[in-house]
Amino acid sequence: MSDEPRTARRTGGRAGRQAARLAATPERVPYITRTLPPFEVLADDGIELIENNADTILEQVGIEFRGAPDALKLLKEAGADVDGERVKFPRGMCRQLIQATAPPVFTQYARNPANNVQIGGSATVLAPAYGSPFVRDLDGGRRYGTIEDFRNFVKLSYATPYLHHSGGTVCEPVDLPVNKRHYDMVYAHMRYSDKPFMGSVTHPQRAQDTVDMARILFGKDYLEDHAVVMSLINANSPLVWDSTMLGAARAYAQANQAVIMTPFILAGAMSPATVAGAAAQTLAESMAGMTYVQLVRPGAPVVFGSFASSMSMQSGAPTFGTPEPALVLYILAACARRLKVPFRSGGSLCASKIPDAQAAYESANTLQPTILGGANFVLHAAGWLEGGLTMGYEKFVLDLDQCGMAHAFAKGVDLSPNGQALDAIIENGPGQHFLGTAHTLANFETAFYRSSIADNNSYEQWEEDGSLDATHRANAIWKKMLADYEPPPIDEAVDEELKDWIERQKASFPDSNV
Amino acid sequence: MSDEPRTARRTGGRAGRQAARLAATPERVPYITRTLPPFEVLADDGIELIENNADTILEQVGIEFRGAPDALKLLKEAGADVDGERVKFPRGMCRQLIQATAPPVFTQYARNPANNVQIGGSATVLAPAYGSPFVRDLDGGRRYGTIEDFRNFVKLSYATPYLHHSGGTVCEPVDLPVNKRHYDMVYAHMRYSDKPFMGSVTHPQRAQDTVDMARILFGKDYLEDHAVVMSLINANSPLVWDSTMLGAARAYAQANQAVIMTPFILAGAMSPATVAGAAAQTLAESMAGMTYVQLVRPGAPVVFGSFASSMSMQSGAPTFGTPEPALVLYILAACARRLKVPFRSGGSLCASKIPDAQAAYESANTLQPTILGGANFVLHAAGWLEGGLTMGYEKFVLDLDQCGMAHAFAKGVDLSPNGQALDAIIENGPGQHFLGTAHTLANFETAFYRSSIADNNSYEQWEEDGSLDATHRANAIWKKMLADYEPPPIDEAVDEELKDWIERQKASFPDSNV
Repeated sequence: MSDEPRTARRTGGRAGRQAARLAATPERVPYITRTLPPFEVLADDGIELIENNADTILEQVGIEFRGAPDALKLLKEAGADVDGERVKFPRGMCRQLIQATAPPVFTQYARNPANNVQIGGSATVLAPAYGSPFVRDLDGGRRYGTIEDFRNFVKLSYATPYLHHSGGTVCEPVDLPVNKRHYDMVYAHMRYSDKPFMGSVTHPQRAQDTVDMARILFGKDYLEDHAVVMSLINANSPLVWDSTMLGAARAYAQANQAVIMTPFILAGAMSPATVAGAAAQTLAESMAGMTYVQLVRPGAPVVFGSFASSMSMQSGAPTFGTPEPALVLYILAACARRLKVPFRSGGSLCASKIPDAQAAYESANTLQPTILGGANFVLHAAGWLEGGLTMGYEKFVLDLDQCGMAHAFAKGVDLSPNGQALDAIIENGPGQHFLGTAHTLANFETAFYRSSIADNNSYEQWEEDGSLDATHRANAIWKKMLADYEPPPIDEAVDEELKDWIERQKASFPDSNV
Repeated sequence: MSDEPRTARRTGGRAGRQAARLAATPERVPYITRTLPPFEVLADDGIELIENNADTILEQVGIEFRGAPDALKLLKEAGADVDGERVKFPRGMCRQLIQATAPPVFTQYARNPANNVQIGGSATVLAPAYGSPFVRDLDGGRRYGTIEDFRNFVKLSYATPYLHHSGGTVCEPVDLPVNKRHYDMVYAHMRYSDKPFMGSVTHPQRAQDTVDMARILFGKDYLEDHAVVMSLINANSPLVWDSTMLGAARAYAQANQAVIMTPFILAGAMSPATVAGAAAQTLAESMAGMTYVQLVRPGAPVVFGSFASSMSMQSGAPTFGTPEPALVLYILAACARRLKVPFRSGGSLCASKIPDAQAAYESANTLQPTILGGANFVLHAAGWLEGGLTMGYEKFVLDLDQCGMAHAFAKGVDLSPNGQALDAIIENGPGQHFLGTAHTLANFETAFYRSSIADNNSYEQWEEDGSLDATHRANAIWKKMLADYEPPPIDEAVDEELKDWIERQKASFPDSNV
């Protein structure tokens, strides 16, 4: 079997080159490779306490696998104590089963091999935000998302060098019927991008449809030993996995495709209102989910996911960018390293409705621990507004700039002779500026991260340019990116086959919005 | 000698209590005590390389001490190689002299002992921004600062529980003559706050005036073994200390008051355009400055300072919130720990002219490494706009909220039984939310950091409230803080003595703006 998918292409095409130019830094990497050790908020004994509590939860309370007889059967056969839909796990069982077969690191293959991503280890893969029913831009304000918006965000993610992944439900195309929109979403990722993407999870059949489409795009056998789809499987916290999500996970795992088993926790509502409590519960829930996946197909790629937010104890609303979710992230990243599975968390999360200072503080306060904690796969790295209810065009490009900075930071410190610059300091001497020195000229292009959005001009220049805030500058950038967009090449026969297949599927059952 | 200053008061007064209520978290601490290990971007051998390069710079290039014959004399006597104004240091000399006498940790005393701050070790002390000629608010836009603005920022810093220090030149009172404005600035800190403050450094005599005023406030002898003034001494990088700054440092050190020896480096202009180069040069410059201070008065409290910004290699403008200055900060914080001196760096720095998303991303990207790197004294923690040219009222309170989050984060993870919440999880069981559980009710008040500015309401509620951005909400907050402000009590006789002394000084020489 070839290691090349059917539609492999060598380059990102003209659009890719354009985006690279647009993005100031010429370098385009398939993912971030972190060189810095992760930041740790607990010593080993603290992490062991969290692990021990997770085992206690699994042993004494257990997890409900609802409407999923296959899961109950598999888990019972593997040694769990199954009572109705409640599954209790002997201490250590989940860890042992996960570690026995789950890959610590795997590759998600893209139809352009240059965009293959490593999931796990020192790699950090950034993907756009996921799941918003609304979109927002400066011109049109907030409105329901459409398939046009969906395609726009796929194109923007394709164009930027700072996202490595096309994501999944980049916004809900509310103009399409609920039971068929996944065809158009998955097709958009396949056609308008050649980066890796995510599949549908809203029904097991839609997951299967995603797998079937991937088999058309990549070749039927290719999927057997290449993960080409990643999917987001959310727990129904506390301590429940439901049949829809488990069914979708099963469809993907059976096809050897990757799933992210993610407790979605608004601490205080879906978990206790403490960091250590939310962390232990998340670990227990995710381990139970990952165990199921490994029983469905030992060795299927699986990711330990965590989405943790704090909440306003006044209103019950989710809050973002606060210290507590950052602490949860750091703890769980350490747990994932010890469990030896890839870790998904973080992003550019915020509660703000608009891309203002609140949005930026909150997003930066989430993205910093995401990078410093060493998350491997990062959903919601760009575009997220309003607790995920809205995907923002301007927020998207503002976040891209921060993702660019994450690339530069993760490289760490250059200690080469050029990086040390000792000769330059010695030659220059006291009181002389370095602007025209040979060392500065040699490092001019790459010395510092260049923001595409920040205005660093004088106040007078900024006024002359219209006294724009960052959001207004971002508005011009996404429009230019879309105007410059050109789709990656695709094999026309494959494209026709995909479109025909989708047409036939769509025609085979009536539209529905449930 | 009493350990109590003349004007000691036991409480922050009514204003302090009001501010504490305003700030959602009832707890008021004199400074942040970090419980987490610092984030490190270099292993020991990397830090040793930076230290070695600093020694090479000190040995082979040396530092110019301009217009400072006393410094040349002291340094020569201590073993340095002095040629004209150029001083070369044998390898290790600076480190040895600093470590022999400089205190690793010291207390800066406030006139309210509850506000004494620890400088060094696991303490982080946050102070407002420093040195802006302009101020900005939503109502009046950008304008030159006045003594009225200055007093306002002193009052705001006094009112918030999230700044521990009154700072220094919180803005330039441009309406007062240059050669006399320091009297009004220092008096404002003494009268309108009872937190620790900073002194004048723009002329050695003005430093001496600050010391004289502190002797009136605290009692003449008190200063001999209590540091009550902290001052910012900037190097003239590369590799120059000038007579004004050295003269001010000398005035303070002779009086046993604290100085922060800070290379102010726009990398690419005042240092090479690389992280390791800027770090080694900063270390060399600051060590030379700290050595001088220890020779003036062995044991005088001294702080290793660093202000490092990247620059736009297109325009030469300073840039903030980029990855490179964060890396410099992490390196130098580690160098300071090894040198065993307190470290000053970081803050809420930005290049943006207004408190928009750019300002917030940049500020958060600076404050995060400030806290994670373990800076001990933090200037510019609130208010900074436009590369320090402008002090913003709304930016100030937006930053305060972030400083509040830093307090919560620095506490780390609560691993007590209540923090672990294992019983709550076990009792609650699968599928039941935690909102009304005993554990949640018991932790309701303190579970999560409560932002004073973030809007976490529904979109509809936010619209009904006027669709305000964070800046507009901040506008209401600083106005309320000022309206609620009441000055801390002061001994009236001391206050009269201060005012009389200032009047006499002002009358003794003509106004001047040079």
